[in-house]
This record gives sequence, structure tokens and C-alpha cells, in this order.
Amino acid sequence: MKKLINSPDDVIAEALKGIGAADQNVRVDHDNRVIFRAEPTRPGKVAVISGGGSGHEPLHGGFVGTGMLDAACVGEMFTSPTPDQMLAATTGAEAGAGVLHIVKNYTGDVMNFEMAAELAADAGVRVATVVVADDVAVEDSLYTAGRRGVGLTVLLEKIVGAAAEEGRDLDAVAAVANRVNEHGRSMGMALTSCTVPAAGRPTFDLPTDQMEIGIGIHGEPGRHREPLAGAQDIAGRLVGPILADHDFTGSEVIVMVNGMGGTPLIELYLMYGEVKALLDAAGVRVARNLVGNYITSLDMAGCSVTLLKADPELLALWDAPVKTAGLRWGM
Amino acid sequence: MKKLINSPDDVIAEALKGIGAADQNVRVDHDNRVIFRAEPTRPGKVAVISGGGSGHEPLHGGFVGTGMLDAACVGEMFTSPTPDQMLAATTGAEAGAGVLHIVKNYTGDVMNFEMAAELAADAGVRVATVVVADDVAVEDSLYTAGRRGVGLTVLLEKIVGAAAEEGRDLDAVAAVANRVNEHGRSMGMALTSCTVPAAGRPTFDLPTDQMEIGIGIHGEPGRHREPLAGAQDIAGRLVGPILADHDFTGSEVIVMVNGMGGTPLIELYLMYGEVKALLDAAGVRVARNLVGNYITSLDMAGCSVTLLKADPELLALWDAPVKTAGLRWGM
Repeated sequence: MKKLINSPDDVIAEALKGIGAADQNVRVDHDNRVIFRAEPTRPGKVAVISGGGSGHEPLHGGFVGTGMLDAACVGEMFTSPTPDQMLAATTGAEAGAGVLHIVKNYTGDVMNFEMAAELAADAGVRVATVVVADDVAVEDSLYTAGRRGVGLTVLLEKIVGAAAEEGRDLDAVAAVANRVNEHGRSMGMALTSCTVPAAGRPTFDLPTDQMEIGIGIHGEPGRHREPLAGAQDIAGRLVGPILADHDFTGSEVIVMVNGMGGTPLIELYLMYGEVKALLDAAGVRVARNLVGNYITSLDMAGCSVTLLKADPELLALWDAPVKTAGLRWGM
Repeated sequence: MKKLINSPDDVIAEALKGIGAADQNVRVDHDNRVIFRAEPTRPGKVAVISGGGSGHEPLHGGFVGTGMLDAACVGEMFTSPTPDQMLAATTGAEAGAGVLHIVKNYTGDVMNFEMAAELAADAGVRVATVVVADDVAVEDSLYTAGRRGVGLTVLLEKIVGAAAEEGRDLDAVAAVANRVNEHGRSMGMALTSCTVPAAGRPTFDLPTDQMEIGIGIHGEPGRHREPLAGAQDIAGRLVGPILADHDFTGSEVIVMVNGMGGTPLIELYLMYGEVKALLDAAGVRVARNLVGNYITSLDMAGCSVTLLKADPELLALWDAPVKTAGLRWGM
């Protein structure tokens, strides 16, 4: 295993130290492993919170800042944070208008966020929850009942963060979250496995002449393996199932071509060209795009595609100013 | 070889297609393989141009846009663009106030940019040149007489781009470039080789228990190989030679911890924590930082550290608005 770490046991604590030192948008609570905005939530603003296992950076901590998240809970590698962490994030960020929990649909995350919401309610904090479930690859999986929550989480955190920043109330913010969740779909693929530091070896074996279509963001199995193919074919394997699952024809969409962590940017741009050509041919109109590493699986090579049908209101929220380490524009 | 490509021969043309479709800041001249700003250079503004071999994305094309580059020439993989490309970029971006060429110090790039400058002069365009040479690892190398140009190029393009945007004349812009070049130093390391698509196999062999200290951005050899070490030791191997080469003590600096393309962000943040601790201990004051993949070597795993001594004027230029795919703030 070749990694820029000291010891597998210390990766997360030490990465948090680096994030705290580097990112002027945030303040790190090292005891609870929660990344808060540097400035407290504005009184009367809905607090938007997410979190999950580590290994997907910049998600979620890199999206804490003005116009996006108020706090992110940092779990162990590929492991849900605890309800205590989520409670600390919730009560720490709450500013009188309630809290939205953005939860990726994995059994551990869902259960722990539910427990945290109950504890928060006992403490008098109103919580609404959206469970992101955008992965069309598989219906159930190793860690999930129902669809997995993957790339759409990035787009949802941006758009919902903007709605909260505008001063909308909790019901309105949750409604935007549900609308995004309803109209977004993703699918990913891997060329290689990732290597979890504590394991020290690849999570799965993928022969040099094969790729995995429909991979999960923890290296959990997808739809099937098949022989390595070219970028154009791969784009078809990802875009096809997305378009088959939801009607995007004639709509404006936000599209993300996301790297899994170990794939260089030149390949992601090449993939974007292929994805864009397929969408053009299918009559899907790309209004905005994002190309880069936004929700990763450690050092996995591969990519995912996310489509979100975006009406003018969602596009305006997308365009609203954001200032985080991972996404930044308009300010 | 596992890559998101169609054919090794088409990688650059197809990536340019994707860049042109994705990046609203730019307009791609596919014939000349030059990435221009979407808007023509403002009349009377110095045009700032760079370019080099592909494989280092987002450098340079991802830094074309308001506040940074006016155009970037895109060479073959790890190969200098031709003088013709550079001439097309120069005459295409020139707006009456002359052109600055930002050249990384590799023999091919230096030679070709010199020739392009001569051709441009024949065409009546005034050109000034800065040759970036910040790598403290080796004095000469496989492709270089003198020091290699590496990470400082990113910082220089940002700062010099801001100086040009302010409306400074060519001599003044070139003076800023030279000042940055004089006060910046870098050093990098690799955990793994990169794989050039046309070669189809790793550029060099690096045993599983070894790392290369002082690596170049094309996989060319560095100072030495040694057994794999922890992040703290690696940080020392990079920061030590930089501090030994230039006096940063007591100064404010801009520091970049840069990934080589295949290293996930969580490791880069962990490395930043280590680098910051060493700088604190050495009495170097970090005024700004950048953590991420900015000048890469395809899929190489590893990182580099860049330090730039920054007086208030350079910091103000650093903070000035920039809007590119690779760096964006203040607008």
C-alpha cells in the first residue's frame, strides 16, 4: 500500500488537522469530528447538515461554507458517523429555524441520522431529513436497502444550501431537497479498486482487462463486470441506464462527470465530451456542468455521471454564490 | 493500461473537445490546439500566455480565464507545443500591449517559445518571456538545462494574470513574473509512476516498498529513491530542501500542496497538516494556501510542495478575482 499517511489509525484525525489549517471557510471540532462553518449559522437561517464515512473527499467537509453546508460529520473510513456526532453538528449549527439532514442512503447513515434526529427533537430542535437515493445501478446493495446515494448528493447540497441561504423556512428547504432527489439520477464505473488504509490491500480484485459497471462509492459491487471498453462505450453504459430510468428528454439538466479519486482530469474532460455528445443526441439540453473529483472513493480509478433535471428555480439556486473549498463561485 | 480513453492517438483532441464543451471561460481553437479566453483580450491589456505538454491538467488550459491566462497552447503528451501553436496563441491573444510568455524550463518548451517570440516580433508583436525554474530537486535533468519549472508555474500564472488584468504594462507584468520566479521554490515526490497512454505501461518501475524523492512532472528521475516513509518524513524531505535553498524564515508565504493526479484529496490534506507544522516550526508564516491537484503527471501518485515568499503586493495580486476552471474566487 502506497499512501501519503503516517499510520492507518491516524488518517482521519490528521487529515482533519490539515483541513482545519488549510480551509478558511471552516472550523473543525476535533473532539466530535464535525466540520462547522467558520462563522456561526446566521440567526433564523435553516442549518443544512450532512456527513458520512470518510474517503469521499471533498464530500462532505469540503462543501461546508457560505451557500452550502453549515456542518459535516466525519465518520471513520467508509463508515457512518455516530448519532452523537450528528447531534453535535445539529445542535451546534442550529440557529432557531431548524435543521435539514442530508443523508446518503446507506443503512448505517440512515439509522444513525434517524437516531440523531430523535435526540435533537428531544432537545427541542426541529429536524427534517432528505435521504438521497440516486444510483440507478442497483436496487439494493451490500450496505443499502433501496438505491444508493451517490453523486446527486453534491448537486443537492449546493442547491439546498442556496435555498437555506436565501432565508427559506425548513419546510421549503426540505421541499427543494425532495425535488432534487426526485429528478436526479447517477451511475458510476470503476477501472480499479480503491485501497482502504486499514485493510492495506485493494477492496476487490478487478483483472487488468476488465471494468466494473455500476460500482458503488465504497467499492461495493455494481451491475456486472465486462471487458475494458473505450470512453465512448463507457459513457453509453452510464448515460443509457440513467436516461432509461427517468425522462430527461427535452429538459434542461445539470450534468456532473465525477472522478473516483485516482483518475486524472484529462480523462474526465474526455469523458465529458462523450457524455455531452450522447445527451445532445438524446435531446437532453445541458444547462450547467461540473467536471472533476467531487465524490470520490479514495484512490479508485473510474468515474460517475449524474444528471439533474433543472427548472429555472433550481438553476438559479445552482448559480447562487457559494464559497467552500470544493465549490466556489460568485463571491 | 486502464484509462478512460478511446485510443491513445486521440486523447488530446478528444479531451479538448470535452474542455471546449464544459468550460464556459474558454474557446478552443482545435486546429491550432490553443485554448483562448471566451472573450477576446481587452484592448490595451497585456496578454498572458503559457502552454506545454499535456498530462498536467488543469495546467495550463484550466487556468485560462479572467484574471489569469489569455491563452494556453496544448502540446502532445509530455511534449512541448510547436512554435506555430505558440505564434497562433500570441497573435490571437495580443491586444496592443504586448504578450508575456510563461515558459516552464524544459529544453523543448524554451526553444519553441523562443522561436515563437522571434516570429511574433517579425509580425510586430512585442513579447517578454519568463522561464519558470523553481524545482530545487536537481540542477539539470533529463529534459532540462538548469532547474525544472514545476509547481510555482501555477502561482505565477495567477499572480501575473492579476497584474495584467489591472492594466500594468508589459515591463511591469514581466517584472512581477521575475519577482515570483526569484522567490518561489518547489520539490516533489512520487509513490508510483504515471502511465503515458501511447506507451501503455508505467514510465518507470518503482518497487512497492520505495518512493522517489525529487521526481519531475514527467516521471523523470529525481534525487534518489528510498524506502517508503510516513507523511511526516515525506513532508520533511520536501520542505527541508526548499528551506535550505531560499530564506523564507520570518516571511509570509503562499504554500501549495499539490497532488500528482492519482493521490486522493484526503491524503493531500493530511500532507498539508504536516507541511504546515514544519513551516510553523521553521518560523515561516503561511499567509495563503492551495491544496489539490493543480499541476499533475497523469495518474502518478505523489505530491509536491511549493513555497512563494509573498510581500503585500504579491498577496494582493493573489487575492484579486479570478475565474477559470482550475482556480476561481472573487467573482
